[in-house]
Amino acid sequence: MLGELLENVRKTTPLVHSITNYVTSNDCANALLAVGASPVMADDIDDIRDITPKSASLNINIGTLHKETVKSMTEAGRISNRLRNPVILDPVGSGASALRTETAKELMREIKFSAVKGNISEIKSLTSGISTPKGVDAGLSDSLTDKTIRFAEEFSESTGAIIIITGKNDLVTDSRNTYIVHNGHPMMSKVTGTGCMLSAVTAAFMGANKDCPFMACLAAVCAFGLCGETAFSRLKERDGNASYRNYIIDELYNLSPKNLEEGAKYEVR
Amino acid sequence: MLGELLENVRKTTPLVHSITNYVTSNDCANALLAVGASPVMADDIDDIRDITPKSASLNINIGTLHKETVKSMTEAGRISNRLRNPVILDPVGSGASALRTETAKELMREIKFSAVKGNISEIKSLTSGISTPKGVDAGLSDSLTDKTIRFAEEFSESTGAIIIITGKNDLVTDSRNTYIVHNGHPMMSKVTGTGCMLSAVTAAFMGANKDCPFMACLAAVCAFGLCGETAFSRLKERDGNASYRNYIIDELYNLSPKNLEEGAKYEVR
Amino acid sequence: MLGELLENVRKTTPLVHSITNYVTSNDCANALLAVGASPVMADDIDDIRDITPKSASLNINIGTLHKETVKSMTEAGRISNRLRNPVILDPVGSGASALRTETAKELMREIKFSAVKGNISEIKSLTSGISTPKGVDAGLSDSLTDKTIRFAEEFSESTGAIIIITGKNDLVTDSRNTYIVHNGHPMMSKVTGTGCMLSAVTAAFMGANKDCPFMACLAAVCAFGLCGETAFSRLKERDGNASYRNYIIDELYNLSPKNLEEGAKYEVR
Repeated sequence: MLGELLENVRKTTPLVHSITNYVTSNDCANALLAVGASPVMADDIDDIRDITPKSASLNINIGTLHKETVKSMTEAGRISNRLRNPVILDPVGSGASALRTETAKELMREIKFSAVKGNISEIKSLTSGISTPKGVDAGLSDSLTDKTIRFAEEFSESTGAIIIITGKNDLVTDSRNTYIVHNGHPMMSKVTGTGCMLSAVTAAFMGANKDCPFMACLAAVCAFGLCGETAFSRLKERDGNASYRNYIIDELYNLSPKNLEEGAKYEVR
Repeated sequence: MLGELLENVRKTTPLVHSITNYVTSNDCANALLAVGASPVMADDIDDIRDITPKSASLNINIGTLHKETVKSMTEAGRISNRLRNPVILDPVGSGASALRTETAKELMREIKFSAVKGNISEIKSLTSGISTPKGVDAGLSDSLTDKTIRFAEEFSESTGAIIIITGKNDLVTDSRNTYIVHNGHPMMSKVTGTGCMLSAVTAAFMGANKDCPFMACLAAVCAFGLCGETAFSRLKERDGNASYRNYIIDELYNLSPKNLEEGAKYEVR
Repeated sequence: MLGELLENVRKTTPLVHSITNYVTSNDCANALLAVGASPVMADDIDDIRDITPKSASLNINIGTLHKETVKSMTEAGRISNRLRNPVILDPVGSGASALRTETAKELMREIKFSAVKGNISEIKSLTSGISTPKGVDAGLSDSLTDKTIRFAEEFSESTGAIIIITGKNDLVTDSRNTYIVHNGHPMMSKVTGTGCMLSAVTAAFMGANKDCPFMACLAAVCAFGLCGETAFSRLKERDGNASYRNYIIDELYNLSPKNLEEGAKYEVR
């Protein structure tokens, strides 16, 4: 099943429109090409009106957020909603600043998101606006308690979005179905943009598999985590996080549907 | 001949001013350093007035275009025109949005470009404004028909710019001379920014070889394509598009004038 | 001693807030993660007010400067000054344009910098505003004459900032103590952003070692230069500046306190 979803990405080469930050946009573009999608980055409001309708899915990421871009995000989201194209939100740093928290909440009011992906503090801030002590990176100690799982399911139910919470293990829920994914490697937190790349890749899977958004999200989370694992196994002496970044994207490029099927590690909750 | 042109880049270290997108600017800077040039990125209008006159050539790229930057592009182009410095346009995504198409056309009215480089749909949009179905990436199936070649020659004649059309094979024409370049590798389309890097490298060759702009363009197209080929031959098992990106820049760094002479594959049309 | 300072970075994972350029921000983020810090990039004025107070140190870099960002830089600097958090300035391209030179000087009037790092022409421009013939890259021929050293010491004395001048050898002075660092490799100038990464890494060392800012700067300069050396020794046939970039960050990731102690090469002046 998951392998087929990857094959659909490769076969249809979905155009993924990303409105994203300047720190990790290059890696996101290469990750999209690696998985078989076609990236387009555009954030000027006048570009939105032409680019978004041509895209298979939309990926909104609020890292290095500029207030002026919020209008473009909203407009692109509305267009995608009208066309029933998947829209994914990566609320980078939500909870760490009022600007990001309020922007993420505003976007969630204005746009119907197909999926929202973040670490536990980012996702929690979308309901409560609580402030976390650190910046944009997740703590590895975040664990998926029953309480967290219930929170995610309820948040999914109330918003209609598939909720993806990343951490030591990842959670994917659409409120009726909840999966815990055991793919991934702790060293992924030592590479900037792994979260951003996952969102982009999720948008690719969703854009190529519009009839099964939940399984598309699950496939994306398993695929990206699996690449983190196999890339780790490729590390040689003296390799560090820069080589690891390259290997993760390389593994995504070489990931076969069969390897995804066999390597995906998830359990129903 | 082509080898000498590369040697001139290495000997004179031309300062290449790029006004470019945030997705591929890092790769462009490293590609410029690799080929022997010196990169400077600056797009604030107040920076233009000092930076552009110090530069040997100007590289304008409309990826992730912001309307506010068009003024800087125009001003930098005018300064370069006044100083008779080469100016190259990379109309990324022209044809995919009205903003980009109209901006590219406006720039071509305001600035006398020495060279314009794009895939066939981007270049065609500069005359017709036709809309293409996809985003910023070229289809590999683009082939150079006689009609396309005549179109390019006429476009070069009417604009005075050397026209470079990239695709399965690349075309370089100044209307009197037309060459087809057979260097390059299909996998280059799986790395974001290869087109942007080619434009930057072309600006470097043009800046270091002001007395022979056409051969400078030919050398740049052959050199970059050749590096794509030799980088491909370096790929090991499990390498993907991220490693390939690094190898392309590495090959540019190690490219010798002799290897360029021997590896360049072009034919007169 | 220097090894301990590195250990403090690893132990405390300082959050380093960077307001920086779009060309090298990804490398800076990965370099920060490599050395053991946590990066956050944010430049919208509304983000500053929440992000800066949570950070251990602030890194201001004026590459690809936009006038609108100066207000954010100033505000972030003031917040950090109030909290007595280290603030470092990387005046990229100061001296090459009036905008950058005047901005760097204005920032130095408004903010009390803990450290200022640049090549000799950038640093000199902060007092005199002299114009250099080239762009943002240093010439390798810059040598540390007695006159230069005296100038740096006096500049440090008058500003209260630790002055770091990079070049063939690097200088670190707080006016009372002056060290010349012999780590580093000439090929580092062939990788874009090595200067930016050094500033970021310096902010990490300063953020984790607030009681000894001078030694923190010295440790950062030695550590980054040492990684440039050991990364060079790792280069294989056909590797170029792209692979070298990755290796530098990898070496930073793998640098042990012991190796820093043993590999640091500096002398008191």
